[in-house]
Amino acid sequence: MSDAVEWSVHCCTVLAALPEEQAMPAARLAEFHDVPPAYLAKALQAMAAAGIVESRPGPHGGYRLARPPSDITVLDVVLAVDGDETAFRCGEIRQRGPAATAGSPAYRRPCGIARVMWRAEDAWRAELAAVSVGEIVTELLATVPTEQLVRGGEWIQDVDVRRRSRT
Amino acid sequence: MSDAVEWSVHCCTVLAALPEEQAMPAARLAEFHDVPPAYLAKALQAMAAAGIVESRPGPHGGYRLARPPSDITVLDVVLAVDGDETAFRCGEIRQRGPAATAGSPAYRRPCGIARVMWRAEDAWRAELAAVSVGEIVTELLATVPTEQLVRGGEWIQDVDVRRRSRT
Repeated sequence: MSDAVEWSVHCCTVLAALPEEQAMPAARLAEFHDVPPAYLAKALQAMAAAGIVESRPGPHGGYRLARPPSDITVLDVVLAVDGDETAFRCGEIRQRGPAATAGSPAYRRPCGIARVMWRAEDAWRAELAAVSVGEIVTELLATVPTEQLVRGGEWIQDVDVRRRSRT
Repeated sequence: MSDAVEWSVHCCTVLAALPEEQAMPAARLAEFHDVPPAYLAKALQAMAAAGIVESRPGPHGGYRLARPPSDITVLDVVLAVDGDETAFRCGEIRQRGPAATAGSPAYRRPCGIARVMWRAEDAWRAELAAVSVGEIVTELLATVPTEQLVRGGEWIQDVDVRRRSRT
C-alpha cells in the first residue's frame, strides 16, 4: 500500500473539519501533514476523480470533501489512491507446464488458490468499507486533547485569514 | 503481493502429492509450473527457512513438505515468501506539521487510521489462515479431471525415473 493512502485519509479528516465555504489548497494540506506536496497533489487528484473531494477554483479555492464524511469509507480512499486491482494476481500457471490440459473443464472457474486469495481480499475490503471518514473524525475528536484540536483548527482557519490578508 | 506467492502455493500442492520418499528438485518444480527457476528457488528457500518445506541433499534430493499439508496454511506460505510486514505502514504523520503536540496522550495508542487498516489486514490474514494446503489439494482432486491428474502424477513420478536412469 502506498504512503499516499495514509496521507489521503488524514487529509479527508482535515477537510471534514473545514468551516463552511472554506477550501484548502493542496499545498496547505501537504504543509499540515508535512508530506511531499507533489506526491500528495497526485493523490488529491485521484480522490477528486473518484468523487471523494472536489476542487474549487479561484484565489480562495482548494479542496473540500465532495460528500458528507459519513458517506466516504476508508475503502473509497484506498481504492481511489492505490487503484482497485487485487493484491493477488492469478497468473493461471495451472495452464502452463507438463500437466496443463487445453480445454480442461477445471479452467472454467478460477483456480482454487486464487479463490482463497480473493476471498481474503474481500474480507479486507469489507472491513475498510465498514468504517467512514466521519467515524474516524468522531473517534479523533473523542481521543485527541482539546488543546491539540484547537491548535489544528486555528491553523486551518488561519490559512484563509492569511489568504484574505493578501487579497 | 509477489508472483512467487502464487507459485509457492502451487508448489506446495505438488509436493503434497509426492510419493513417499521422493523429493522434487527446485528446477523440476519450476519446469512443472513453467516459472523462472532462479526466482522460484529463492521462494523455496524462504519456505524452507519458515519450516514449510525441507531440502534433502544427494542425487535423489530435492524438496518435500516439512509437515503434513493439513498443517500448512495459505497464510504460512504468504508470510514466508512475502514477509510478515503489514501492507499499511503508519508514518505517524499526526506527529508532524503544525498540529503536532509533543507528548500528546493521543499518541500513546496507534492512530485511529492505522487501527482501521490493521484490523482489515487481520481479517485478511484470518481468511488465509483458515485454509490449508491440504484443503486446496482436496478441492483440486475433486474438481480436476482424472485424466489431467494422471498426467501430472506421471510427470512427477517420471522425474525420479529419469534421475534413477542416469545414476
